Amino acid sequence: MSDLKNDRFLRALLRQPVDATPVWVMRQAGRYLPEYRARRERAGDFMSLCQNPQGACEVTLQPLERFDLDAAILFSDILTIPDAMGLGLYFDQGEGPKFRKAIESAKDIEDLPIVNTASDLPYVPDAIRLIRRELNGRVPLIGFSGSPWTLATYMIEGGSSKDFAKIKTMAYSNPDLLAVLLEKLTLSVIDYLNAQIAAGAQAVQIFDTWGGVLSTAAFQQFSLKYMAQIVAGLNTEAEGRTVPVILFTKGGGGWLESVVATGCHAIGLDWTQDMGEARARVGDRVALQGNLDPAILRSSVQVVESEVGKILGSYGSGEGHVFNLGHGVTPDIDPRHVAALVDAVHSLSVKYH
Amino acid sequence: MSDLKNDRFLRALLRQPVDATPVWVMRQAGRYLPEYRARRERAGDFMSLCQNPQGACEVTLQPLERFDLDAAILFSDILTIPDAMGLGLYFDQGEGPKFRKAIESAKDIEDLPIVNTASDLPYVPDAIRLIRRELNGRVPLIGFSGSPWTLATYMIEGGSSKDFAKIKTMAYSNPDLLAVLLEKLTLSVIDYLNAQIAAGAQAVQIFDTWGGVLSTAAFQQFSLKYMAQIVAGLNTEAEGRTVPVILFTKGGGGWLESVVATGCHAIGLDWTQDMGEARARVGDRVALQGNLDPAILRSSVQVVESEVGKILGSYGSGEGHVFNLGHGVTPDIDPRHVAALVDAVHSLSVKYH
Repeated sequence: MSDLKNDRFLRALLRQPVDATPVWVMRQAGRYLPEYRARRERAGDFMSLCQNPQGACEVTLQPLERFDLDAAILFSDILTIPDAMGLGLYFDQGEGPKFRKAIESAKDIEDLPIVNTASDLPYVPDAIRLIRRELNGRVPLIGFSGSPWTLATYMIEGGSSKDFAKIKTMAYSNPDLLAVLLEKLTLSVIDYLNAQIAAGAQAVQIFDTWGGVLSTAAFQQFSLKYMAQIVAGLNTEAEGRTVPVILFTKGGGGWLESVVATGCHAIGLDWTQDMGEARARVGDRVALQGNLDPAILRSSVQVVESEVGKILGSYGSGEGHVFNLGHGVTPDIDPRHVAALVDAVHSLSVKYH
Repeated sequence: MSDLKNDRFLRALLRQPVDATPVWVMRQAGRYLPEYRARRERAGDFMSLCQNPQGACEVTLQPLERFDLDAAILFSDILTIPDAMGLGLYFDQGEGPKFRKAIESAKDIEDLPIVNTASDLPYVPDAIRLIRRELNGRVPLIGFSGSPWTLATYMIEGGSSKDFAKIKTMAYSNPDLLAVLLEKLTLSVIDYLNAQIAAGAQAVQIFDTWGGVLSTAAFQQFSLKYMAQIVAGLNTEAEGRTVPVILFTKGGGGWLESVVATGCHAIGLDWTQDMGEARARVGDRVALQGNLDPAILRSSVQVVESEVGKILGSYGSGEGHVFNLGHGVTPDIDPRHVAALVDAVHSLSVKYH
């Protein structure tokens, strides 16, 4: 493995000094990029692109050709694990993810296998090895997974949901059965992320996209508990470095202290959380990642720069900040505004380091 | 006006001692009740029912016939104000609210009138007078309005929204123009709520349904600022009593301290906020209302009772708690589970008073 030429991102996650605040963008390889749309068209459907290591590698690298990003993130989907469990993930034109076979009974849950990444999802570590080779040490590569709770919502609802009626009914009426599913997902995620680390992922992020729809007690019981098990089960030393673990619960700004207690290295924040307040609460223990409202990218270069400056100022001086959006970039964004974001983070943050 | 036979709700909002925790349910007069569905069918469309004082009165009283609720809430819609401004509110079958004429330009905003409730929305105070007469002092009557920000989201998006793209673009690109709209809405809401109070509303709630989609700074600038102006502009003394003001920002659990600073009497909490933690933060200054996850009503009587008990225990002993859901009851709920909720609140809360 070649030496890492830009380690700002990894250093910031470990709260070590950096020369400027590192930045990456959730969903940075995505539909807002014309070159992505072209590559996706050639691939046919979205999952074919995810499952083709060469295609996933190409797409992962696309935003790095345009923007001075401090990290690459594996191009994939959070629902590869349920797909590998046999649920048949597919995407209808213009709609969210769906499963051919949703989880409907106790037997469905009992019958689910635990994922063995090497045999069930080989295309993911294959893609990571390829991307690492192509990156050649330019920036670190992030691996990722959905959280067990978030994966379970899709598996039980059969796709996206507005009110999470089915899984919440199970959570309150049959919590032991839901626990069986969440345990299987937890073991699968541990295997999956360890395989990504072994293949070369230099940091990992767990996307708990739907943890924020739970009550405080239910979040602890059905989401955070399993994320803590994952953090404890990861091999976070590789290539002589620590592999930092980032937990991102959308809508989880009220629970930062308990998220810290998982032992994660960093917490991703959505835009509803004030960065300075979050730092005051937990910034002596973890790094913080975020948290520009993606909607701001619709405005103008000038507004993007101004709002970037506010978040940098809110975080203040010193180590431990990775700049990002508070959620993924949407397809309608002008890539020039993403360029403005990345450049503004670097230029405006120097004075804080 | 006859004396109030049950003033638990008003006393709890003012943090005065009560014999048991009062309870009402957001959207307690709604589609989960067969008698509501029958009355609605007779009325034709939803807005016709809102605009008919006799019909609104009947529907307001329906849940009180079934459940031992401690308050009635005016049956109406938060979008009566934009409708009265000329936007043409309508509801398509099975869809959310829509406007025939969305706000699209600076001229559209300049042309908007400020609502005069007496002339533009007479059916609302008429309904309140009728409901008060029919209630005959049984329980207090709650009036309500949407917050300026929340009303503006529907007016600019043209209806419900997933990402609030249009209004956020305006908020970041042209905040002065959005401020003109929010000022007009603020003056309209003040007039509207004061007219409701003059007609007999004994408490008022401001529904800031979409304040929680904003960043902390944007929430202060575009939502909270105007709610504070409303609180300051209300005539909160009527019939020799204080008319308490409840502010409910869904997703606003991180901002309780700044919501208190508006001078409101109570804060509505969604279910993501731990009741005990909220009380520790602000419970010496305001009452707290909430906050059972409405999804729990899908489970069973036993689970409903258990979860009610947890929230009561989390709040603990003493004054200042009004029990409610963390959001409105949904159409798929069995009314017997709402009955179980109401009865459990009363029976399980006695020991805390």
